[in-house]
Amino acid sequence: MPKLWNETIEAHRREVRDAILDSTAALAAEKGPLSVTMSQIAEKAGIGRATLYKYFPDVEAILHAWHAREIAGHLARLTEVRDRTDGPGKRLEAVLEAYALITHASHGHHDTDLGAFLHRDSGDHLAHSHRRLQHMVQDLLTEAAQAGDVRADIPPAELTRYCLSALAAARTLPSEAAVRRLVTVTLAGVRPSPH
Amino acid sequence: MPKLWNETIEAHRREVRDAILDSTAALAAEKGPLSVTMSQIAEKAGIGRATLYKYFPDVEAILHAWHAREIAGHLARLTEVRDRTDGPGKRLEAVLEAYALITHASHGHHDTDLGAFLHRDSGDHLAHSHRRLQHMVQDLLTEAAQAGDVRADIPPAELTRYCLSALAAARTLPSEAAVRRLVTVTLAGVRPSPH
Repeated sequence: MPKLWNETIEAHRREVRDAILDSTAALAAEKGPLSVTMSQIAEKAGIGRATLYKYFPDVEAILHAWHAREIAGHLARLTEVRDRTDGPGKRLEAVLEAYALITHASHGHHDTDLGAFLHRDSGDHLAHSHRRLQHMVQDLLTEAAQAGDVRADIPPAELTRYCLSALAAARTLPSEAAVRRLVTVTLAGVRPSPH
Repeated sequence: MPKLWNETIEAHRREVRDAILDSTAALAAEKGPLSVTMSQIAEKAGIGRATLYKYFPDVEAILHAWHAREIAGHLARLTEVRDRTDGPGKRLEAVLEAYALITHASHGHHDTDLGAFLHRDSGDHLAHSHRRLQHMVQDLLTEAAQAGDVRADIPPAELTRYCLSALAAARTLPSEAAVRRLVTVTLAGVRPSPH
């Protein structure tokens, strides 16, 4: 069945928008976020400047939209990993490993001008996403503690801060193998105490 | 035995310098670092403006000197804790707990304009102190691994990043009791694997 006209328009708009975000992120990583111009973005995305301005008012707005899309993608990925894994202990492991690998893979952003730019101005948005992540991990830890896979002598809210803080080290590790070892060590910390 | 004249002068200079640093830090915390003036500092420290300028050229220089003194104090405190504790396992525990408590106690700085100001401009100095901290913790982990108190299946450099990253959560915890629980969990992560 052919798409309805409205769906076709909507799909086209999403494609253009994605092309704008991808082009801007590539230019910002290459030249630094403050040197990118709307003309360069239009050229790289293969659209006219007038069209670009129908989508976004300025470079800053595009970079924030790109960042929001990245973060939403990460959260969607973690949700997917959670929902396809059985058993509270395994689910916790799978989500923390996926989180650590995402943190490792996106570490490039944090070391660059682009990272500094995004983190300076996107406080609210980031804080909201971080809360969603915290809730997801805390629910997994609570569930795993009830199943006896995680120590029950420490509040899940504190174990959540510990896990996310420990796994932030994935940003500075040199390899995925090292990231997996970090996940092993972090999980060892939340196992039920042998005493 | 009375002090020599040179020692007396030196002690006096240190006292004045400390009074300047303390006054500036207090004013910066109260008004924000960018609103503090040299006149206010001189008044609060109980010295003349001309004297103040013999010690420091501007407010920024004083704030950096204050921060350097803080960090040096923290490292000295950790060294002292290390040197008075016997046994590799106990020594690691004592130093990590002291580090977590210091991180917790100084968390106020990081949430304020003063913290933002200091961390923006003191990159090199902070990086140097952080490397000294990393070396200290890595030596303790290596020694504890040799004694069988810490897992030997993961490189001490990686365990160091894990420990310092995990303990950074102390900054956001509400109480010293929670900080001690964080230290317990973090240390559980580095214990020899039971398998």
